[in-house]
Amino acid sequence: MANPPNKITLGHYMWSRLHQVGINTIFGVPGDFNLQFLDPIFQIQGLQWIGNQNELNAAYAADGYARIKNTPGCLVTTHGVGELSALNGIAGSMSENVKIVHVVGQTTRAMQKNHMMIHHSIGNKPDHSVYSRASEGLRVAAAQLWDVESAPREIDRVIRECVVKSGPVYIFLPLDLSAELVDAALLDSPIDLELRVDVAPLWDAVQAVMSAVKEAGRPTVLVDGLVQRFNAAPEAREFVRRLGVPFFSATMGKGVVDESDEKFVGVWNGEVSTPGVKEEAKKADLVITLGYIPCDTNSAGFSRKLEEAKTIYINPFDVVVKGKSYPNLAIKPLLAALTCALPSPPQHNLPIPTLPPPRTPLDASATHLTQSHLWPTLQNFLRPGDVIVSETGTSNFGICDITFPANIRLVTQIYYGSIGFATAAALGADVARREVEEEEREKEGGRTILITGDGSMALTIQEIGTMIKSKTKIIIFVLNNDGYTVERLIWGAQQPYNDIVPHAYAHLLPLYHHPDPTSAFHHATTKAHLTDILQLERVRNPTCVQLVELVLDKMDTSWKLGTQLAWRSEEHREYLSREGFVDTYGGWGLDGRAGGDVRWS
Amino acid sequence: MANPPNKITLGHYMWSRLHQVGINTIFGVPGDFNLQFLDPIFQIQGLQWIGNQNELNAAYAADGYARIKNTPGCLVTTHGVGELSALNGIAGSMSENVKIVHVVGQTTRAMQKNHMMIHHSIGNKPDHSVYSRASEGLRVAAAQLWDVESAPREIDRVIRECVVKSGPVYIFLPLDLSAELVDAALLDSPIDLELRVDVAPLWDAVQAVMSAVKEAGRPTVLVDGLVQRFNAAPEAREFVRRLGVPFFSATMGKGVVDESDEKFVGVWNGEVSTPGVKEEAKKADLVITLGYIPCDTNSAGFSRKLEEAKTIYINPFDVVVKGKSYPNLAIKPLLAALTCALPSPPQHNLPIPTLPPPRTPLDASATHLTQSHLWPTLQNFLRPGDVIVSETGTSNFGICDITFPANIRLVTQIYYGSIGFATAAALGADVARREVEEEEREKEGGRTILITGDGSMALTIQEIGTMIKSKTKIIIFVLNNDGYTVERLIWGAQQPYNDIVPHAYAHLLPLYHHPDPTSAFHHATTKAHLTDILQLERVRNPTCVQLVELVLDKMDTSWKLGTQLAWRSEEHREYLSREGFVDTYGGWGLDGRAGGDVRWS
Repeated sequence: MANPPNKITLGHYMWSRLHQVGINTIFGVPGDFNLQFLDPIFQIQGLQWIGNQNELNAAYAADGYARIKNTPGCLVTTHGVGELSALNGIAGSMSENVKIVHVVGQTTRAMQKNHMMIHHSIGNKPDHSVYSRASEGLRVAAAQLWDVESAPREIDRVIRECVVKSGPVYIFLPLDLSAELVDAALLDSPIDLELRVDVAPLWDAVQAVMSAVKEAGRPTVLVDGLVQRFNAAPEAREFVRRLGVPFFSATMGKGVVDESDEKFVGVWNGEVSTPGVKEEAKKADLVITLGYIPCDTNSAGFSRKLEEAKTIYINPFDVVVKGKSYPNLAIKPLLAALTCALPSPPQHNLPIPTLPPPRTPLDASATHLTQSHLWPTLQNFLRPGDVIVSETGTSNFGICDITFPANIRLVTQIYYGSIGFATAAALGADVARREVEEEEREKEGGRTILITGDGSMALTIQEIGTMIKSKTKIIIFVLNNDGYTVERLIWGAQQPYNDIVPHAYAHLLPLYHHPDPTSAFHHATTKAHLTDILQLERVRNPTCVQLVELVLDKMDTSWKLGTQLAWRSEEHREYLSREGFVDTYGGWGLDGRAGGDVRWS
Repeated sequence: MANPPNKITLGHYMWSRLHQVGINTIFGVPGDFNLQFLDPIFQIQGLQWIGNQNELNAAYAADGYARIKNTPGCLVTTHGVGELSALNGIAGSMSENVKIVHVVGQTTRAMQKNHMMIHHSIGNKPDHSVYSRASEGLRVAAAQLWDVESAPREIDRVIRECVVKSGPVYIFLPLDLSAELVDAALLDSPIDLELRVDVAPLWDAVQAVMSAVKEAGRPTVLVDGLVQRFNAAPEAREFVRRLGVPFFSATMGKGVVDESDEKFVGVWNGEVSTPGVKEEAKKADLVITLGYIPCDTNSAGFSRKLEEAKTIYINPFDVVVKGKSYPNLAIKPLLAALTCALPSPPQHNLPIPTLPPPRTPLDASATHLTQSHLWPTLQNFLRPGDVIVSETGTSNFGICDITFPANIRLVTQIYYGSIGFATAAALGADVARREVEEEEREKEGGRTILITGDGSMALTIQEIGTMIKSKTKIIIFVLNNDGYTVERLIWGAQQPYNDIVPHAYAHLLPLYHHPDPTSAFHHATTKAHLTDILQLERVRNPTCVQLVELVLDKMDTSWKLGTQLAWRSEEHREYLSREGFVDTYGGWGLDGRAGGDVRWS
C-alpha cells in the first residue's frame, strides 16, 4: 500500500532520523510487535539490517558499533521478552557512557489501554508498560510515543539526548503507531546535535587551568576513557601534543592516545603498573585528568591516589581545578579552548623518562604457551588501523599490559565488566570499522581482533554465527584455560563452580557454515605453534573469520591480574600462594607490601 | 576456617532452607559477588550445583525445574551484570506463575554505603541497588538483606511467599553479610508453607458452586494451567473424576489432566479447535474453569467466549460463580472441598461425545517431511512418564494439537512466549524429572523430550553444552525450517529479518564433547527417515543426549497456527494466501469466516 505523497510512516521517519545522525546498521531481533516497522529499514538507502542471534547480543553489538563509529548504535527488540533480554547490554552502555538507541516495538495502543492479556504480558489485567519501567534507571532519556503529532519531536529529542549525554535512550513504539503517517518534509531540518557552549564559564575554567599549568613545575596528563565517549579524542590528543610534557593513560584510556608517541610514558594503573611508570607519575606536581573514570578496575583497586591540591579533573560536564568546581562545561569544546590557550612553544621542557628494561619472566624457557609469552607476542601482531575487542578478565589484564602501535581502537568494558560482551561487541565494532573505512576511503583497512576466554565466549558464542553470516573477517583469539581463571584467582581456585562446559573449538566454525572451516581454525599449545599461526597470511590478512584457540594452563595468569588481586589484602596474597598461583616476575610486584583501602569481604 | 559450634554462615543457612523446601539443585553462574557463598552448596548433603552457560539460561533452567518438581527452582547470579541478564527469564516466571528464588550476590555493605565505583556499577557515585529496582515489577516478593539479625527471618518470609503466591522472589545478599554467622538451630523449625484456609468463606463458595452444578443440565469443566502452578493438579483431576462429565482443557492445561481419560473431549482452543471440540463445548450450560488463563495465545485470539451467567471461575485466589465473586480462597483446598461435596454417584450422566474422524491433509502423499505428518508421528513416540518441553511458535502449535498418553508433563510458555526458553528449560526439567523419579523410586523412568525450532534454539543453544556436561539423556527435536516461520506467518514472509544464521547441526554435539556425537545425531528430510529414526533403540531409550534435525519447508505450517493467524482478520487471511501459505486441511478451518475482536495493527 503506497503512502500518500509527501507522507511517510512514523517507522520510516524514525529510521531516517537515525540514519541522518550516522547510523548505517540496525541490529536486533524481530518479534511480533516490531515486524511491520522493520520493513522501512530496507527502503532507506545506506541503511542495513543485521539480525542477531538474541537480544543481549544485539545490545552488545550496537554498543561495539557505537564505540567505533562515534555515532549512536541502534538495536530494535520486541515488547517484554526482547527488551528485557537486552537489558544487561543496555546497562553496560549506561555504565560506560556509550550512545545507544534502543527501539522497542510495543503492543498496540488499544491493547495497552484495555489491559489485554496479550502474550508476553503479566497477570489478568496486565500493565503493558511494566517492562519499560524496568529500564528506567538504565537510560539517559526515554520517549514513550503515544500519538503521531508529538512522536517525531520526541524521537528527535531522545536522539539529541543520546548524543549529548552519551548514553542509552529508549524509544517505546506501539506497533500501530509506527504505521501512522507524518510529513516527509520533517526530515529536511536536521536534528540539532550541537553542544551548547556558554563562553563566560568556559573562559573562567580555561583561565583557572592555565594558571595552574603555569605555576606547575612538572605537570602531566592522565588520559582516560570518557574522552573517547564524548567524542573528544582528537581534542585530547591535540591538547597533549601542545602541552608537550610526558603523559600517561589510565587503562580505560588505552587506544585514545598514540602510545608510540615519544612522550607517552605508559599506563598508570596505580600501584599495579609496569615498573617505572608509577614512579614517574608520582613525580608530577600537577595531574590533569581527561575524562577520568576512577573505578576499582581502572585504578588497580583505588590505588592511584590523586591529591586535590595537585589535580585538575576535566570531566564530561565540569572541570575541577584543585578542588574548585566549574560546572556546566562540555569536555569537547573545553579541550579545544584549552589547546588554543596553551603557549607555543610549550612552557615546560621536561625530560622523557627512561623506563627499566623489560623483565624476564620465571617461565621464559617453557616451550608450552604461557601468559607471559602470549601478550608480548600479540603486541607484535598488531598494526595501525586495527580494532581490538577485549573481554573482561584474563584478556583485559593481558591486552592492557602491552603497548599499542599508533591508531589502535580498543573496545572493552573495564568498568561495567559483563563477561560475554566482547564476542558480540566485536561483530558491531567490525561493521562500524568497515563503515568508517569506507567513508574515509582508507586504502588499507585495519582488522578487527577479538580476544576472549573460554568462559566468557560461552555466554554469547552464537554471535560467531552472525559474524560468519555477515561475511566479517574477524580474527578471534580464544584463551582456553579450562574455566573462569579470573574467578579462580578471586575465590574457589579448585571449586567446580569455576569449571565450565568444555569446548571442542574445531567444530565451532563448521556449525555456522563457515566457508573454509578447517584452514580458518588454529590451535596453539606451544609458543612455536603460536609463532607459526601468526605468520600465516590468512591470519595476518584474513578473508573470512579466523579462530585461534590458545591453550593455557588454568592456573597461569598475567602478572598484572595476579598483582591487582594480591593488592587487595595480605590474606588474599596468602590465598594466591596457597592455591598455587605464581607471579612470573616474583612477589606480585608489590615489594612485600599489600593491602589497598578496600576490604573485599 | 571452621565455624564456632552451633553456628553456620548466613549463606549456609539460606541454602539449607532452600533444600528443606525441596530444592536439590541450584542453577546459576558464578561471579565476583557470589563466589564465597557458593561454597556451602557443596557442604549440604543432597544439594548440587549446576553451572549454566549464561544467566538467562540459568533462569530458564530453574523455571523448567520448578514446573516439574512443584517446588521452587533456584538460580544464583551476581550484582548487575548477572541479575539483569536473567531478568527476562524471571519475568517469564512472573507471567506464568512459576516459583523461582533468585539469589543475587551483591557488593559488600561498605561498598554500597560509600557509593564506591566498584565494577558493574553506573556513574561516579553509584547507587548499587539500581539493578535490584529493575526487577521490582517482576517478582512477588523481595528480601533486601542488610543485617544478620533479620536476614534468616527475611529469607524464610520470601520462600513462603514464593510458594504461596507461586512466582519469583528476589534475595539481595551482600557478599560480606553472607559470611556472617547465625544459629544452626534456626534450621530446626521448618518454614511454614501451609495455606491459610478460612472455613466460612470456603463454605459459602462451595455452596454456591454446588448449587450452580445442581441446577445445570449440562455442566462441563475447562482445565487450565494455573491448576498445575498452584500445585492443585491432583485435586483438579479428582474433581473432574467425581463430577463425571465430559471435560476439556485449554492449551495451557495440557498435561494437567489425563487425555486418555474417556471423558476427555479435547483441547478447547476457542474457534481454532480440532473439529467437533468447540461444538461440544458450546453445548454446555455451565462451564467450570479451573486455573484459567484467558490470554490471546491460550484462547485462539480471545475466540473462546464464556458467558458470565453460564460460567464458574475457580481461580488461584478466588472463585467467581456466575458473576458473583468469593475472594480470598486458595485453589488447592477449595478444589479438595468441592470434590468432597460432589454427590456420588455423579448427578449428571452425559453421553461421551464422538468427534469426527481425523481429516486427511492435502499433502498426505508427500514423501518429504511435512508438518501435517510430523505431529501425529511424534504423538506415537510419546509414552507415559515423559516430560515434553516445547518452544513457543511452530513447536507449540504442533505439539498442542496432538493427544498425550497418560502421565505426560508439558513444559511450555504459552502466555509469556519468550523464544529460547525451551532449550534451557529442558535442562532444568530433566534434572527435576530425575530427582522426582528417584524420590518416588519409579522403576521405569520417563524421558525428557525437547521440541524446538532452528530460530528459537539459536538464542540459548549453548545450554546444550550443559546438558551434555551434566550427562542428561534429553532427546532434542529441532525443526529446521530456515528461519522464523511463525513470524513469516505474521508479517514479512520473505523479508530478510525473518532469516536466521543457518546451522550445520552435525557439529553441535561434538562442539560440546558429546561422548558419541555421530550416532547421537539424526537428520530427517523425509517421512521415511523420521520413521526409521524413531524406531532406533538409542532414540527410544537414550543413554546420552540425542539430536534429531527435522528438515521442513519454510512455508509449511501446522493448520492450527495458520488458522489462529487467519482468525485475526480478513486482511490477514488474504496476506497468508498471497504469500503462499497453505492450510493442509483447506480454508483455515474457519468455514469462510474470519476476524476476531482484536485488531492487531
